[in-house]
Amino acid sequence: MTFPDTAPTIRHIREAARRIAPHINRTPVLTSASLDGMTGCRLFFKCENLQKVGAFKFRGACHAVSLLDDARAARGVATHSSGNHAAALALAARIRHIPSCIVMPENAPGVKKRAVAGYGAEIVFCRPTLADREATLEKVIQRTGAEFVHPYNDYRVIAGQATAALELLADMPALDFVMAPVGGGGLLSGTALTVRAVSPATAVLGAEPAGADDACRSLQAGRIIPQTHPQTVADGLRTSLGEKTFPIIQRLVQEILTVSEDGILQAMRRIWERMKIIIEPSAAVPLAAVFEHPTVFRGRRVGIILSGGNVDLDHLPWPSTPE
Amino acid sequence: MTFPDTAPTIRHIREAARRIAPHINRTPVLTSASLDGMTGCRLFFKCENLQKVGAFKFRGACHAVSLLDDARAARGVATHSSGNHAAALALAARIRHIPSCIVMPENAPGVKKRAVAGYGAEIVFCRPTLADREATLEKVIQRTGAEFVHPYNDYRVIAGQATAALELLADMPALDFVMAPVGGGGLLSGTALTVRAVSPATAVLGAEPAGADDACRSLQAGRIIPQTHPQTVADGLRTSLGEKTFPIIQRLVQEILTVSEDGILQAMRRIWERMKIIIEPSAAVPLAAVFEHPTVFRGRRVGIILSGGNVDLDHLPWPSTPE
Repeated sequence: MTFPDTAPTIRHIREAARRIAPHINRTPVLTSASLDGMTGCRLFFKCENLQKVGAFKFRGACHAVSLLDDARAARGVATHSSGNHAAALALAARIRHIPSCIVMPENAPGVKKRAVAGYGAEIVFCRPTLADREATLEKVIQRTGAEFVHPYNDYRVIAGQATAALELLADMPALDFVMAPVGGGGLLSGTALTVRAVSPATAVLGAEPAGADDACRSLQAGRIIPQTHPQTVADGLRTSLGEKTFPIIQRLVQEILTVSEDGILQAMRRIWERMKIIIEPSAAVPLAAVFEHPTVFRGRRVGIILSGGNVDLDHLPWPSTPE
Repeated sequence: MTFPDTAPTIRHIREAARRIAPHINRTPVLTSASLDGMTGCRLFFKCENLQKVGAFKFRGACHAVSLLDDARAARGVATHSSGNHAAALALAARIRHIPSCIVMPENAPGVKKRAVAGYGAEIVFCRPTLADREATLEKVIQRTGAEFVHPYNDYRVIAGQATAALELLADMPALDFVMAPVGGGGLLSGTALTVRAVSPATAVLGAEPAGADDACRSLQAGRIIPQTHPQTVADGLRTSLGEKTFPIIQRLVQEILTVSEDGILQAMRRIWERMKIIIEPSAAVPLAAVFEHPTVFRGRRVGIILSGGNVDLDHLPWPSTPE
């Protein structure tokens, strides 16, 4: 199947869901009576923290790998990432029994290096600059002929991420809002494509840290404003929108809400305490938006995509000591 | 409905499931490819940590409350507990709009007092001895006429706890084993009643800390050996079997496996890291048994009931500092 170089349609998204179904976890949608009581709305959490590799990123990586013909696949896949996309692509490649090569900055945390290596990827280190990252990846691709799978600026990846909202709407119809965090915009743009097609009366919102609010500023400016010097604990949301994700978001997302750092940590902690699930700071950003923009949500049915659950348990964002 | 004063039959358990269905969470059964890889078996985790109040205890408490006729219910319910049963009974009473009174030792952790008070229960403090606990409860019952709902030595409670295994077997048939942790034995006896009736080829196992191994010793002795001076991080499993739970376990449970304290903490941490869900130490005991008794489980399909997820996030059993 050749995948179009335009925004995926709902037909492509449904086809992506069918392709990745044998490999992904069909994650549950959880609710919390106590969080509903605290917020005054009805919240439906699509738990992509319980997805394979602990993040929605596996959907897009798995979809991109599934689209390669055998000859192309045999040369492997490559990307630059120190986050969840790296582990996702490594696992997707392993499942198809093809090689993967991940370019990581040499100062990436040991826990992330071990995770990617644990999925069987080759790791090539680079200096921690965007220029060296891209140059190193280019060399890898020239050497191996591997297919580059970008973390978000790739329609195959966007179509894969879009399948989380497809499952959410199948399980929980009649939502007033669906909200996802926005970093590079792969999840948010995919979510918006699905929701617009499947449930046009549902509004799609993005949520991002005030300290990394390039999506909000880009929508206001009508063009991509790259994120410089992001200041946020939400490490998955420090990237800038891409030229493939921005136009979709511009067309289909109603609003981007921004939240404070305190709000992110408080929302994260509330989900741990009340729902007994582990989410990473980036995944807490939409719930923080519910708390910080209460009038938007009061009395409404709100679907939230919990994007991931990868945290270093030895370095939680609050101090903890054995009793 | 009058509930029999004998071990519940599968008909009673199915009726319990029907009664509590509007109030409980139908918790998901989660799997983990990485834990399957580490253990060499297929594990199916019934996530009662995601149950209301964060523990299976809500099933039994909710069932006991549902069986009271209106006149009896109006006088309220009472128990002595500083753990999950206290919160479970308080919430079950609140849902039925009846009073609840919980006798707690005055030295119970503040986080537990607040949880129970948060569900609207009256708390009556006692000195931290079994004698004063029982005497204080007796006074409460004389004053209020409340119905005593024991944490485990009560057939209504046992039938409620039995519904977790009913859901597990409905979602995941053809299990070789179902394993639950054992403290007072309410969960394990209920699980055994369900499994024997619904899937007689499935063996039922209990798991307990070596430092609180009264169930193992009781089965060997053929009579209840009370637990004295339990030494374990698994605070939900320090109690002794009751005269209602022991005979059921003796008749229907194949074996009680014991595990080390290190094994409990390692299993707990592995579930947090790999499955992105929060479980309390007691809930980690069955997975610890899989790791410490590997030959029993290799190649088998093993259902595990994750009993609860209530931990104090400021006092995890490992040190953590912000980066």
